[in-house]
Amino acid sequence: MSQKIFKKRHTRIGARPGTLVISKQSPRPVVRGIFYNPESFEDQPIEDLDRLTEAFKKETIAWIDVQGFGDRSVMNKVGSVFGLHPLLLEDVVNVPQRPKTELYDDQLLIVVRMVRLKDPEDQSRYRVDMEQVSIVLAENYVITFQERYGDILDPVRKRIKGGKGIIRHRGTDYLAYAIADTIVDGYYPVLEGVGNDLEAMEDEVIRNPSPEVLGELNTLKNQLINLRRAVWPQREAVNSLVRGDYALIGEDVRVFLRDTHDHCIQTSEVAEMYREMATGLMNTYLSSVANRTNDVMKVLTVMASLFIPLTFMAGIYGMNFEHMPELHYRYSYPLLWAVMTVTTVGMLIFFWRKGWIGRG
Amino acid sequence: MSQKIFKKRHTRIGARPGTLVISKQSPRPVVRGIFYNPESFEDQPIEDLDRLTEAFKKETIAWIDVQGFGDRSVMNKVGSVFGLHPLLLEDVVNVPQRPKTELYDDQLLIVVRMVRLKDPEDQSRYRVDMEQVSIVLAENYVITFQERYGDILDPVRKRIKGGKGIIRHRGTDYLAYAIADTIVDGYYPVLEGVGNDLEAMEDEVIRNPSPEVLGELNTLKNQLINLRRAVWPQREAVNSLVRGDYALIGEDVRVFLRDTHDHCIQTSEVAEMYREMATGLMNTYLSSVANRTNDVMKVLTVMASLFIPLTFMAGIYGMNFEHMPELHYRYSYPLLWAVMTVTTVGMLIFFWRKGWIGRG
Amino acid sequence: MSQKIFKKRHTRIGARPGTLVISKQSPRPVVRGIFYNPESFEDQPIEDLDRLTEAFKKETIAWIDVQGFGDRSVMNKVGSVFGLHPLLLEDVVNVPQRPKTELYDDQLLIVVRMVRLKDPEDQSRYRVDMEQVSIVLAENYVITFQERYGDILDPVRKRIKGGKGIIRHRGTDYLAYAIADTIVDGYYPVLEGVGNDLEAMEDEVIRNPSPEVLGELNTLKNQLINLRRAVWPQREAVNSLVRGDYALIGEDVRVFLRDTHDHCIQTSEVAEMYREMATGLMNTYLSSVANRTNDVMKVLTVMASLFIPLTFMAGIYGMNFEHMPELHYRYSYPLLWAVMTVTTVGMLIFFWRKGWIGRG
Amino acid sequence: MSQKIFKKRHTRIGARPGTLVISKQSPRPVVRGIFYNPESFEDQPIEDLDRLTEAFKKETIAWIDVQGFGDRSVMNKVGSVFGLHPLLLEDVVNVPQRPKTELYDDQLLIVVRMVRLKDPEDQSRYRVDMEQVSIVLAENYVITFQERYGDILDPVRKRIKGGKGIIRHRGTDYLAYAIADTIVDGYYPVLEGVGNDLEAMEDEVIRNPSPEVLGELNTLKNQLINLRRAVWPQREAVNSLVRGDYALIGEDVRVFLRDTHDHCIQTSEVAEMYREMATGLMNTYLSSVANRTNDVMKVLTVMASLFIPLTFMAGIYGMNFEHMPELHYRYSYPLLWAVMTVTTVGMLIFFWRKGWIGRG
Amino acid sequence: MSQKIFKKRHTRIGARPGTLVISKQSPRPVVRGIFYNPESFEDQPIEDLDRLTEAFKKETIAWIDVQGFGDRSVMNKVGSVFGLHPLLLEDVVNVPQRPKTELYDDQLLIVVRMVRLKDPEDQSRYRVDMEQVSIVLAENYVITFQERYGDILDPVRKRIKGGKGIIRHRGTDYLAYAIADTIVDGYYPVLEGVGNDLEAMEDEVIRNPSPEVLGELNTLKNQLINLRRAVWPQREAVNSLVRGDYALIGEDVRVFLRDTHDHCIQTSEVAEMYREMATGLMNTYLSSVANRTNDVMKVLTVMASLFIPLTFMAGIYGMNFEHMPELHYRYSYPLLWAVMTVTTVGMLIFFWRKGWIGRG
Repeated sequence: MSQKIFKKRHTRIGARPGTLVISKQSPRPVVRGIFYNPESFEDQPIEDLDRLTEAFKKETIAWIDVQGFGDRSVMNKVGSVFGLHPLLLEDVVNVPQRPKTELYDDQLLIVVRMVRLKDPEDQSRYRVDMEQVSIVLAENYVITFQERYGDILDPVRKRIKGGKGIIRHRGTDYLAYAIADTIVDGYYPVLEGVGNDLEAMEDEVIRNPSPEVLGELNTLKNQLINLRRAVWPQREAVNSLVRGDYALIGEDVRVFLRDTHDHCIQTSEVAEMYREMATGLMNTYLSSVANRTNDVMKVLTVMASLFIPLTFMAGIYGMNFEHMPELHYRYSYPLLWAVMTVTTVGMLIFFWRKGWIGRG
Repeated sequence: MSQKIFKKRHTRIGARPGTLVISKQSPRPVVRGIFYNPESFEDQPIEDLDRLTEAFKKETIAWIDVQGFGDRSVMNKVGSVFGLHPLLLEDVVNVPQRPKTELYDDQLLIVVRMVRLKDPEDQSRYRVDMEQVSIVLAENYVITFQERYGDILDPVRKRIKGGKGIIRHRGTDYLAYAIADTIVDGYYPVLEGVGNDLEAMEDEVIRNPSPEVLGELNTLKNQLINLRRAVWPQREAVNSLVRGDYALIGEDVRVFLRDTHDHCIQTSEVAEMYREMATGLMNTYLSSVANRTNDVMKVLTVMASLFIPLTFMAGIYGMNFEHMPELHYRYSYPLLWAVMTVTTVGMLIFFWRKGWIGRG
Repeated sequence: MSQKIFKKRHTRIGARPGTLVISKQSPRPVVRGIFYNPESFEDQPIEDLDRLTEAFKKETIAWIDVQGFGDRSVMNKVGSVFGLHPLLLEDVVNVPQRPKTELYDDQLLIVVRMVRLKDPEDQSRYRVDMEQVSIVLAENYVITFQERYGDILDPVRKRIKGGKGIIRHRGTDYLAYAIADTIVDGYYPVLEGVGNDLEAMEDEVIRNPSPEVLGELNTLKNQLINLRRAVWPQREAVNSLVRGDYALIGEDVRVFLRDTHDHCIQTSEVAEMYREMATGLMNTYLSSVANRTNDVMKVLTVMASLFIPLTFMAGIYGMNFEHMPELHYRYSYPLLWAVMTVTTVGMLIFFWRKGWIGRG
Repeated sequence: MSQKIFKKRHTRIGARPGTLVISKQSPRPVVRGIFYNPESFEDQPIEDLDRLTEAFKKETIAWIDVQGFGDRSVMNKVGSVFGLHPLLLEDVVNVPQRPKTELYDDQLLIVVRMVRLKDPEDQSRYRVDMEQVSIVLAENYVITFQERYGDILDPVRKRIKGGKGIIRHRGTDYLAYAIADTIVDGYYPVLEGVGNDLEAMEDEVIRNPSPEVLGELNTLKNQLINLRRAVWPQREAVNSLVRGDYALIGEDVRVFLRDTHDHCIQTSEVAEMYREMATGLMNTYLSSVANRTNDVMKVLTVMASLFIPLTFMAGIYGMNFEHMPELHYRYSYPLLWAVMTVTTVGMLIFFWRKGWIGRG
Repeated sequence: MSQKIFKKRHTRIGARPGTLVISKQSPRPVVRGIFYNPESFEDQPIEDLDRLTEAFKKETIAWIDVQGFGDRSVMNKVGSVFGLHPLLLEDVVNVPQRPKTELYDDQLLIVVRMVRLKDPEDQSRYRVDMEQVSIVLAENYVITFQERYGDILDPVRKRIKGGKGIIRHRGTDYLAYAIADTIVDGYYPVLEGVGNDLEAMEDEVIRNPSPEVLGELNTLKNQLINLRRAVWPQREAVNSLVRGDYALIGEDVRVFLRDTHDHCIQTSEVAEMYREMATGLMNTYLSSVANRTNDVMKVLTVMASLFIPLTFMAGIYGMNFEHMPELHYRYSYPLLWAVMTVTTVGMLIFFWRKGWIGRG
């Protein structure tokens, strides 16, 4: 994935609405169908899209999962088989869209933002990886779209396969809920990871405010700004499902979505809190550097102020004037040492009182 | 409790809704039942949950208090005895949730955030301790849940036992109010404690801006950000009770809840004010350090500027050129002293005028 | 009054609602009754609260003024004589509450925040003094409560006594308006005083950014944060009176309250503006200190850079090597002076070009 | 005008509503009447207010312009002749009020904030001058009030006199619109002037961050804070006219007011943008000062680090020990020069690599 | 285009509404007409405006494109031919207006802000170029206005000409949508360009915080403030079209506009995110400079602290006192070297422990 904090696949300016813009990095589409009802379960790769609809049976719920967009004709095929509105298909493919819900006749598009920590081995600058998952919800099928291959929805698949719980007994609205909820649940580990980074950095900032720490702090902060921007609109999108704007979502499923909504709010609030803390940490960094400069200056000032007057005194009696009576006195030298000692002690007391040595 | 500023017990991603995630640190559940009406009062530990409902009598209000979640089977038992919705039980156990109110059929879940100052002996970094108290309000019973053992609700218990006041004559809604109000009342001492910390730190920041103070200030500020995040949604949660969204809350109890709502608003405003003051203090800290660096620099500059030219003059007449006429004049030496004195006095006047010595 | 920026008299946690918490500093209650109608005016201290209601006559408006809360039994007596709701009495006594309006059956509680500049002789840290005035408005009487003795309402008393204007011809709603308006009018001199402080500090910050100024600036800023927090909710409280939420306030009096509402908005906006200016001043302070450090550094750098090379040159010819041919040349000494002069002039030009001497 | 950023003429605390507070600087009121209809136009000073109403004719629109408030009796006279509500008159005279619209029976008060750049010759600190213009709109007359003499409304007068355009064919609502629009139009040159100041200051801040620039920047910023506060509520005031809250404003004039409303929004947004830029400039200033201090430090460090070691070396061989073999070697002196040269070159390379000399 | 961040062509203060203010830089108006229906397509320059309406045929959609305002009579002619309201024409010509939609009888004015990156060869300070495009939508024609010649709408022209897609089969509302959507699509490349600048600057700020970078950063930030101000109100303008406030926009076109609205929200959020990042970068800059000053100070302090004491020691034995026993001892000189070495090593250890040398 790119280093960019924001990169959108957008159409050529002025292109016809519905024009698909597919990233070169997106792999070939792989389509998979899951068909289930309380009694039966089938999970099969779908090679021939034309014959897809034959697989649909009455009384069966179909979940079509499309991963990878790297072949425009396949994507258009999917669009025509399911009668997707051109704008819906554009929203699905030209990622990222804002998280949102949009009704097109009898299909409801739910755009969800997936957030994940990257592999620790990934050396890229940003640790958080975002991807759009688009859910199309209809009467008897759900289609999910992801730009890259991924396994985030495997737990849902397993729950259906396992047949425990109520998922096999519910309709497509519950399936869409289960998918969205799974994605939103994924926010917590990311927040924990980022929170850990933040706390680790806090100590570093106060103990050792190096330029590297500054760079990391800046990256972390930008990431949190971006994270918040991704998580925030998710609230509204889920809320429109809870509120009952759409007939496709049954009353009983709304109770579950209310829970998902709560999680969206909580995660967005925590992301905001972290962003605020990171901003504060930048100020702490600056204060910490200023503190260290102050320490350095104190040492310099103490050293210079102690020795510069003494050097001057020594310089005086290094002069070669013919007529310098002090040079010839018996006790000039020890006396000078005495004066120097007194001066030094005086200075030390002065500095100690100021708190520049011995304490602080 | 952990040092983390935010730590949530969340389910494995994609887990079935209603999955309970119980902290290893949470102690074994202890269940206690209080049954009262104007005439009678009974307070007893409940060992056998199956026989709990037998203790319910008509005309009696039951308050079931569950402390500690450390045994999944007990928690599930509580859920099944009272017919709690799986999502309700999840919200109760997988703490922290946001403060909120949610209706599940004939049970109203009220999530309240408890805030307390830690023991002064507790050496942990954050002084403020937060915990979720969940209140389930039904027609003739109230259930309260806390993750750890605690005595915060003892005053309510005593008021019921004492039988003074109106609490024995009211329904479960008044009991729920009394519990919520007791928790919200607990915000004031915390705010006072934090406020005291803040004022103590203010002097320190201006007098002695050391790195330790910076660390403490940063901790305090993060804590205030967190406190505000905890207290703020409490307003909305209590407000939904006041507004009359729920039939379980009687008109007369709403007058009391309006009072609780006022306290929520006041505490959240004070928390916000403190946060703003702490942010300002960070800037004050930086200014204070800059000021001290300025002081250090002044001393260095005065010392160096006074003695460097003098040292140079002494250096001149320390040279060993054969032909330096000044060396042989009779009054060269005292004259040089005169020049040095004049230079020094000139410099002193210059520095005094700039305000670098003698004043400021 | 305490140095604290926020201090609330709050009940013991979990206390019965309606519990009064009275400050030890609050003096003994003094009750005073004013009874008037267009024809008559009576102003008398009230010793025996029990006989208070006897003083009420038809066609007469009664204004009962209670100052000082220092005797719980008197306060409870007032409550029972007028039939005040326990929560109303709690709001009146456990100051400060947020400014608000609340209806209890046929009594309307209006909580107003009084703001005053302290005596210039008062040596306390904060110059602004706040106090809560509670107004209880009923059909034929108004009760006012203040925690300390004070004369802020004297002008209203005089206007009633004088009998000029319309106040004697209006009902209790107009009296309540007159009291609230008088208190809100008191915000302007405070804002002027704080504004003067702010402008005085501005010059100081740029001319002489000393640590004392920093401390004062910090205090002023916290005070403005607090002031804003006190003034802001006043808007909403007065607005609810203007909007006509309460039947006790007549249509004609609402026109006057609209004016009070305008003043509340204006004062809160000015307070906010001042707060913003104070925040900006903190940055100005930091910039000003940085500037002065820069000045100090320039002097040090110029002095050191001028003399350190010269001292080095002098040092060279102070060496005692046997074989230093320059020492024996006839014109070595004047030549050295020439080199030194050229060096010095070169440096001076360099520094002058940089703007470190002579300009800036 | 005063140097104060906010100064309001407010009544003595607790004064009767409607009390007028007149600035000593306000000149004697000058009243001028313009009476016009499509066919006729009359413009005359009005000496005798009592006979003013005689000048009113049917089918004629009257515009009474009052400039200067310096005579209380005249102001009260105006009030009684037109039957102005005491609070309306107070709002007109006790400036500044917030921009607002208020209906008093059949008179609509429109308070508009006039903003102007001061004369360039005016040496006062703030360049922007604000004044309140109050417009009283009634069925067949418009009264305008200004505290000081001014010519801002002359263009409207000329348009009426010229008789071109539609102004002579419309009612008082269009006249009020024309006056308000003229005042709002005056915001643009002010914003341009302030914008120019800001851009001029930007270069200065980066090139030469002197304390004078800091002072100016601070003044500019406070001015922008104040400007924004003045312009912002104007939006809402004009919007209430557009929305059709008042029957006095005809449907056709509302189309024009919509335009004025747009201008209010645009100017307030630009003022806000400028304020934000000025705030940013304060940070830029600080960074710029820090940069220059860094430059100064580099010079000092390079100079000191170059010569201090050399001076030490020279000092060594200036010692007078009897037994210093190097002093007697033939090539000691040139060798020392060689060592010194190598040291210096090494240091220079070190500093060059750090970017402290030669580049940056 | 000017360097100004905000420059508006505004009328003389108090001018008649509808007065056109035309920039001297605006070129002569060029008018071009496109007339199409599903079967036919015509694109022709229009010389004689009077005969324009003759070109209108039933069943044909007309798109009149006006580029350049540099001839007042032509602009007025356009106004009269199409019966444009004077205020509408003013909004079109006196650019920039805020993005907005306004209905004048049967004509809907849609003001859109066009945003473009300037030519890389353009040496001006701001890289982003803004221009207003005004769209007048009526039953059977659309008029577009641009102050300068430009080709941004060519893609729409080509789509109409090509006849593919649905554009030839839809009404004027779809044409207006296509134009607005094309302009909004143009925001993405600008955001990408600005985002690239921002990321490039980030490294620079941490590696090399020079004054040039500060200037660029400041410019970039002001530009982002301006960009956000331009993009933000676009949301509301487009939303009013989506909401169905205007009968001229058909239900089917609203689905497309919903998409445009989404793009407006996304771009404004990204612009806001970038602005926040630029603000953060300013703090990073300051921290980075402080860091470098700290580095410089460390070098100075280490150098000075190492050599100043040594120089003092050398100075001592350069004195010419007659009675300095050390001068005559055999091993004085090597002993002194020993002392100096020990001192130096001690200092080095001290500095190394502090992290001022060798690490950090």
